[in-house]
Amino acid sequence: MGKPFRYTRPVQWRDTDAAGIVHFSVFFNYMEEAETALLRHCGVDVLVTNGQDRYSFPRVSAQCDYQSPLRFGDTVDVDVSVVRLGNSSASYKFQFSCDSRDVAVGQVTAVYCRLSDQHEPQAVPIPPSIRDQLSQLLP
Amino acid sequence: MGKPFRYTRPVQWRDTDAAGIVHFSVFFNYMEEAETALLRHCGVDVLVTNGQDRYSFPRVSAQCDYQSPLRFGDTVDVDVSVVRLGNSSASYKFQFSCDSRDVAVGQVTAVYCRLSDQHEPQAVPIPPSIRDQLSQLLP
Amino acid sequence: MGKPFRYTRPVQWRDTDAAGIVHFSVFFNYMEEAETALLRHCGVDVLVTNGQDRYSFPRVSAQCDYQSPLRFGDTVDVDVSVVRLGNSSASYKFQFSCDSRDVAVGQVTAVYCRLSDQHEPQAVPIPPSIRDQLSQLLP
Amino acid sequence: MGKPFRYTRPVQWRDTDAAGIVHFSVFFNYMEEAETALLRHCGVDVLVTNGQDRYSFPRVSAQCDYQSPLRFGDTVDVDVSVVRLGNSSASYKFQFSCDSRDVAVGQVTAVYCRLSDQHEPQAVPIPPSIRDQLSQLLP
Repeated sequence: MGKPFRYTRPVQWRDTDAAGIVHFSVFFNYMEEAETALLRHCGVDVLVTNGQDRYSFPRVSAQCDYQSPLRFGDTVDVDVSVVRLGNSSASYKFQFSCDSRDVAVGQVTAVYCRLSDQHEPQAVPIPPSIRDQLSQLLP
Repeated sequence: MGKPFRYTRPVQWRDTDAAGIVHFSVFFNYMEEAETALLRHCGVDVLVTNGQDRYSFPRVSAQCDYQSPLRFGDTVDVDVSVVRLGNSSASYKFQFSCDSRDVAVGQVTAVYCRLSDQHEPQAVPIPPSIRDQLSQLLP
Repeated sequence: MGKPFRYTRPVQWRDTDAAGIVHFSVFFNYMEEAETALLRHCGVDVLVTNGQDRYSFPRVSAQCDYQSPLRFGDTVDVDVSVVRLGNSSASYKFQFSCDSRDVAVGQVTAVYCRLSDQHEPQAVPIPPSIRDQLSQLLP
Repeated sequence: MGKPFRYTRPVQWRDTDAAGIVHFSVFFNYMEEAETALLRHCGVDVLVTNGQDRYSFPRVSAQCDYQSPLRFGDTVDVDVSVVRLGNSSASYKFQFSCDSRDVAVGQVTAVYCRLSDQHEPQAVPIPPSIRDQLSQLLP
């Protein structure tokens, strides 16, 4: 319990910029991919459609500290853990490494919401089935 | 002095995702565009080539708190200010709004570095000409 | 009549890759931005919501021939013209240049469609009001 | 010989747009990923550094015809074949499918080039070792 979930992917050419390194914004896409892989691993759908209603996990905050650059040709490991589980929200920590070199550390907080085309997303409690799965990833 | 620099741009269709809102990672691209516009406004080059040496501002940290979603059709204002100026680093604050609705607040710290294809970027002092320009944006 | 519509934008840092040039996929985003700017200039909404129904212009084909690279610091001009107007479809041509240097030529065909979350987009005739506007951009 | 190389990847949330489908520009990133995977499978480096010289495969043309939309949750198969091998250029065909549903067909032509920070990329003959590998993927 609490063992991080590992997501691994190669750096793609498009992920780089003219400085020859992975662009800082791309780490947030890597975080999303890792979060999706983790939720799928737990049997949780990222987008739930229930009749007219759609539910998903928009983010309320995201951050990343960069330690060492990634380049094309690198393969990056992303270790995800759940660091906080609120009534409607979940916070994830992402540790990026490449051949055991520390690359970056990120954190994202997502809130379970009912989506609407017209109105702002509205926070709702995380359903028990999802909560049970995520709580197993708490440290 | 200390008055934020305003960068304005329309939300593009590609910036949205299947929830109908601008993807959280895209705000970091908006921050970069605003930072570039600010540096250009100050007469500072984002990438300086000096013989074999290239200098730029890779980021060491980035974060964003999301308050209200942006949608296709919106125009976003990004108010940038310099919140800290170190020997080699500069920290920027970004306040996103849309028709005076608060949308998000971001912060990025960049470090002035000598770039190399083979080695890691190496921090060097911000040249006085750039420092003078940026210091005028401190609060 | 037939005079192309010009859309101008700076190359952003994120648009580049480790070869130091704008990534080939990014030209398709520039085309979309130019198409959106043209439609807006004509008073046409890219996404129309009519009760439960939503209408938009998904693409059925896209292509680009690259002549000369774009780099960070360049400003690109995109000249758009309507080259064909069918019952449901519109084809656009995009000529990219930078300081009168030819950069690329692209073409996109979009089909006016009723969108649905469950089903595939369904082609419908372009409404007369939109057709009138677009036909003025035919050569 | 001539059997296409298959690259498989899940649709990521960021790949979608507000129409709920994968954005048309993203197919070009999928093509690049598939091309990179194929070259790696053949033991070919996408970027070769030889002293001061760097060699890569910038694209001179790219196109895609879209048949059926991809959505978040889909897994896409990309079958790549080499359709033409010139002195300096290689053309690839990409057939996209999802659970045997035809999704799109793309084509890209890349030219083997010496890269330079100052000058335009310059076409050079494809080295025999790379040519031998790619020719095995001709139909």
